[in-house]
Amino acid sequence: MRAYDIIYKKRQGYSLSREEIEFLINGYSSGKIPDYQISAWAMAVFFQGMDDQETAYLTEAMARSGEIVDLSEIGAKVIDKHSTGGVGDKTSLVLGPLVSAAGIPVAKMSGRGLGHTGGTIDKLESIPGFCTEISSKEFLDNVRSTGISIIAQTADIAPADKKLYALRDLTATVESIPLIASSIMSKKIAGGADGIVLDVKTGNGAFMENLEEARELAEKMVRIGRNVGRKTIAVISDMNQPLGYKVGNTLEVEEAVECLRGKGPEDLRELCLTLGANMLILAEKAADFRTGYEELTDLLDSGKAYEKFLDFVAAQGGDIELIKNDDLSKADKRIMIEAEDSGFVSSIKTREIGLCAMLLGAGRDNKESKIDYEVGLELKKKIGDRVNAGEPLVEVYYNKEDRLDEVIRRLKDAFIIKKEKQEPLILIYEIIE
Amino acid sequence: MRAYDIIYKKRQGYSLSREEIEFLINGYSSGKIPDYQISAWAMAVFFQGMDDQETAYLTEAMARSGEIVDLSEIGAKVIDKHSTGGVGDKTSLVLGPLVSAAGIPVAKMSGRGLGHTGGTIDKLESIPGFCTEISSKEFLDNVRSTGISIIAQTADIAPADKKLYALRDLTATVESIPLIASSIMSKKIAGGADGIVLDVKTGNGAFMENLEEARELAEKMVRIGRNVGRKTIAVISDMNQPLGYKVGNTLEVEEAVECLRGKGPEDLRELCLTLGANMLILAEKAADFRTGYEELTDLLDSGKAYEKFLDFVAAQGGDIELIKNDDLSKADKRIMIEAEDSGFVSSIKTREIGLCAMLLGAGRDNKESKIDYEVGLELKKKIGDRVNAGEPLVEVYYNKEDRLDEVIRRLKDAFIIKKEKQEPLILIYEIIE
Repeated sequence: MRAYDIIYKKRQGYSLSREEIEFLINGYSSGKIPDYQISAWAMAVFFQGMDDQETAYLTEAMARSGEIVDLSEIGAKVIDKHSTGGVGDKTSLVLGPLVSAAGIPVAKMSGRGLGHTGGTIDKLESIPGFCTEISSKEFLDNVRSTGISIIAQTADIAPADKKLYALRDLTATVESIPLIASSIMSKKIAGGADGIVLDVKTGNGAFMENLEEARELAEKMVRIGRNVGRKTIAVISDMNQPLGYKVGNTLEVEEAVECLRGKGPEDLRELCLTLGANMLILAEKAADFRTGYEELTDLLDSGKAYEKFLDFVAAQGGDIELIKNDDLSKADKRIMIEAEDSGFVSSIKTREIGLCAMLLGAGRDNKESKIDYEVGLELKKKIGDRVNAGEPLVEVYYNKEDRLDEVIRRLKDAFIIKKEKQEPLILIYEIIE
Repeated sequence: MRAYDIIYKKRQGYSLSREEIEFLINGYSSGKIPDYQISAWAMAVFFQGMDDQETAYLTEAMARSGEIVDLSEIGAKVIDKHSTGGVGDKTSLVLGPLVSAAGIPVAKMSGRGLGHTGGTIDKLESIPGFCTEISSKEFLDNVRSTGISIIAQTADIAPADKKLYALRDLTATVESIPLIASSIMSKKIAGGADGIVLDVKTGNGAFMENLEEARELAEKMVRIGRNVGRKTIAVISDMNQPLGYKVGNTLEVEEAVECLRGKGPEDLRELCLTLGANMLILAEKAADFRTGYEELTDLLDSGKAYEKFLDFVAAQGGDIELIKNDDLSKADKRIMIEAEDSGFVSSIKTREIGLCAMLLGAGRDNKESKIDYEVGLELKKKIGDRVNAGEPLVEVYYNKEDRLDEVIRRLKDAFIIKKEKQEPLILIYEIIE
């Protein structure tokens, strides 16, 4: 078997066999097949696509390129959740304790932020003392004792995916549905989940800007799940504005805590309940969506999910007194951006909001960047809200002034205000299973 | 400027600017842009194509990546000829002396054979003593004194093309019309020619198997020539059977000599006269095709082209006594393959003929292979010929027996004989200027 022939075959639009895909991925992992053949293949995949069977083969080959976490000793079905990434997306912080409180063990690996979207691990690390790099033993012990643990994804989870993703990122081959789908699913499968609920975001702050693409990706991942024997449900949710009001690490922990206390923004609560109810269905802990949804509503409103969150944070070394007393440290320096016109917020440049938070220090320019947990943005208005000239639109929490002018300028441009009344956006577009 | 953005732009189907293409090629040449970005770009070009302007930019960038030969001191227009490659194609051996005899200085760089097609340099080196690697000074001196010199292409001619071609060969990105066209034209331009006549071959022994593709390539190259200020004419000629009857280095020199003496196979003679007449037009040595054609016919029939050939060979150290006495050394061991059925030769698997000659040792398996000049094939029948069972089809000249059985088996399969009468093939399909 030769890499050349496999590239040629894909270039001509034929489907690759399991053996061919394994040859490619194993050869790439071991360094026998060079980057330049894999990047040509990835570009051919961009143009010719991959059928469901091929995508499943690719997913499995990448999952098997490293350790497959064995969660069987937990003794109950583990259901994982994955978001394709958005701005202000703190659902994992709420959802983990919430479904754990409902009896689903949460043994989750999460990522760090890069680019305009944040990462769960960075947000958790903004809690003083919280440790996301613990041993596998401690990880499983925590899951058994408190019912939940969330750690940083280890280097040995799907290393072939990591290598391929880094190459795609340099060769303009990221935007391929089968490659995105197999990348996500390979990590989830290697993470050991029995079932997977996907939050596929669509809109101007998501990687999939339009609904059709998001649906295509969601359907592809659900079919991969079916092909590899992991029950998968995809929720397509809106990302035409940040989720909730707060963007930035400590700010997002704060908003997640509000939600866990039964309050907080309606969209965040609704999305967590929707994703959670589907997790309960996959875990066979709820007969139907409505039952699951109501059970989780009770867990939020009764404070049980919040209690679970405190146990979880404490077990990983986080200072829960700061959380209980609403005393997490935020930047003292603040600037309020105000509306220049009166009308209704008609749209928000969500990617710009994410990039502005990054520029303030809430995210990474590159892998070496240090995060400033204290900084970020707090929206005062969202789409559909009425606003008068001079009213606050968004508050900037900052520590350094070097990029502040740019941030202010870009934030002013990020809110589009029109005279015509604008209805609030739909939050959940579709559920695909 | 970033390579990523250029790949992305091409992937999305946009045309690249001169600056972008120069950035890519210069960066690749200098090693600043890695193979894996260039191979992804080449695959994007395979799918999205390149317009005429882009292809001209690419051609110029590759031509300028090394030395541009300056032939101005020759003091007359130098017209080069290039063939896209075929089996039994010894036209350069005839055409060089022929047009030189007509007053066009020939200062030509040629290549070696690789794969199923032979190379002019290997054929010339089959003449004992003939040296194809002489200094540029000696090269130009020869052109001035005898009117012709042919040397091996030096490493410094379009090195970016050489590097890119090697990469395309490993990444299934060879078969792209703009990449093929710019590769050929960059070498011709770096070689210093004022005008170029292209012999674009089509058929089952050519890289362009069908006429439409050959026409597309021919038109692309003619338009590149126009864009970069080198007058270019393309002749589309048939390669559904070997040109002439002989395939293999010494055998082909022998057949070229017959042609230079005013005899030899009709198709070889006709193609040389057609290509040559177009060269005379570009050199402004003939008012029209018919005049040029007749002048060249005279030069062949009068023996003047043959005299020029002897001068040329002698100037580069070749033993002309062996040529004059028809005493070039050929393999003594011979086997005749005979027809198993009676009928008409309906088609010939030309690529197989070329590969069989290679297997005998007339060509290279890889760059390190040594060539056996003495071996090859002599066809006894060509398409349209009547043949009876038991009559000779092709004679095998061999020295080693290790691959002989395979060669015999494949040669038997390479001749398709049918009962129905078959007309001879058209030799010249089109002339594009």
